[in-house]
Amino acid sequence: MAPPQDGKEAEVKEESVPQRPISNVVFIIAMKTEASPLVEKFQLTEESNSVFPKGVPWVRYSGKYKDLNINIVSPGKDIVLGVDSVGTVSASLLTYASIQALQPDLIINAGTVGGFKAKGACIGDVYLASDIAFHDRRIPVPVFDLYGVGTRQACSTPNLVMELNLKIGKLSTGDSLDMCPHDETAIIANDATVKDMEGAAVAYVADLLKTPAIFLKAVTDIVDGDRPTSEEFLENLVAVTAALDQAATRVVDFINGKNLSEL
Amino acid sequence: MAPPQDGKEAEVKEESVPQRPISNVVFIIAMKTEASPLVEKFQLTEESNSVFPKGVPWVRYSGKYKDLNINIVSPGKDIVLGVDSVGTVSASLLTYASIQALQPDLIINAGTVGGFKAKGACIGDVYLASDIAFHDRRIPVPVFDLYGVGTRQACSTPNLVMELNLKIGKLSTGDSLDMCPHDETAIIANDATVKDMEGAAVAYVADLLKTPAIFLKAVTDIVDGDRPTSEEFLENLVAVTAALDQAATRVVDFINGKNLSEL
Repeated sequence: MAPPQDGKEAEVKEESVPQRPISNVVFIIAMKTEASPLVEKFQLTEESNSVFPKGVPWVRYSGKYKDLNINIVSPGKDIVLGVDSVGTVSASLLTYASIQALQPDLIINAGTVGGFKAKGACIGDVYLASDIAFHDRRIPVPVFDLYGVGTRQACSTPNLVMELNLKIGKLSTGDSLDMCPHDETAIIANDATVKDMEGAAVAYVADLLKTPAIFLKAVTDIVDGDRPTSEEFLENLVAVTAALDQAATRVVDFINGKNLSEL
Repeated sequence: MAPPQDGKEAEVKEESVPQRPISNVVFIIAMKTEASPLVEKFQLTEESNSVFPKGVPWVRYSGKYKDLNINIVSPGKDIVLGVDSVGTVSASLLTYASIQALQPDLIINAGTVGGFKAKGACIGDVYLASDIAFHDRRIPVPVFDLYGVGTRQACSTPNLVMELNLKIGKLSTGDSLDMCPHDETAIIANDATVKDMEGAAVAYVADLLKTPAIFLKAVTDIVDGDRPTSEEFLENLVAVTAALDQAATRVVDFINGKNLSEL
């Protein structure tokens, strides 16, 4: 994770990347439906001795897969309402607490997104996000406006992209499942191909705590299509999650045994 | 902090409140301009040995005032852009980290807000919020919709309200300084008198970690008035902050020596 940099700074940054194989990978996944197949795939077990504070609903699954220690963390069910704790507040807290407790070499924020057909997105596509920004933090005061948008770049992974033939696009984040006209304007300004409800918060915290992060997002609904987002989202959630999990497994297989600079 | 409860549950809750004087108070304040006069008033000093992780811009001032240990924490300046780290993501992280590190008996989220003249708000008014909710987290799926709004009640303080003759109103939170039509609809649904950019995030985290919190908010601009919010906000920020700090001092003087159940 890094803000846009000129060539020289990027070079210095690259030199400081540790030259040892990635060991600890933390997946941050907002919904149980998205996380469950991956938990099974990697044969992880739920940790009852939480590294998180008492009372939080956050869930952690961990285990060894090939040479990697893998943790999948989810914000869990809202204690009162029983629904997945989606959105930027929960995602930022969970990212913060997970970095503190688990010291990952790499964060993978995996989840579902709405895609824009005008930018080439189709249902079932899996994207690796190049840039991540907010679209619902409008602060029309100089410099604060840029802070609100909060654009971050994902960890650079040119070899991963080439090897896995993943689609690349910009990700825009907001706390609403729908899209009001003001959101739409901001999403267009962000040049986004996909929109989610957590990515930019994960990117912000990962950047704050200097932890590399990548963003793997599968399209459940077409935002600029004819059907209501919530209807299409619920209909495709399970099937698209299978595509996401397949891509996540390929990413993890590629990462295994490699340094960050080899991604 | 508690979700809406019936009389019986509220009674049980009240019995479990510790019967000892409040000792540790943590102010969570988003902007330096809002925090500085209070730091001076309570003669706090900036802590160089941070209880927060390396690299975060969060600032902590601490000291003794009467019988109270007072901390004022602020999210500080964005590392790249240099503006105050306003909004729900920073506020939630800071609240979380402060509760973990400082174990406050009471959180006071103090700051400036936009007020609605249709609900009786005037510039310079200082409100104690009764309820806090989000207005920019629209998730039109059953139960998720309630999660998005995320209404929380502030810690009940009937004696404080009566003694200090503070105005009471509902607070609505969103990450934008302006108000789009969708925000307006949600703010009206929240029955809000004042709107800010942090309160509901602080309320969410305080509730999650079972820490009592109150919300003291001073009106810098009239949202349903004729002038642009950002213009009015910047013009009144310093003067209204003085009113906020006066109210905050009266609140702290009232709290000193009292149990939570006496507030």
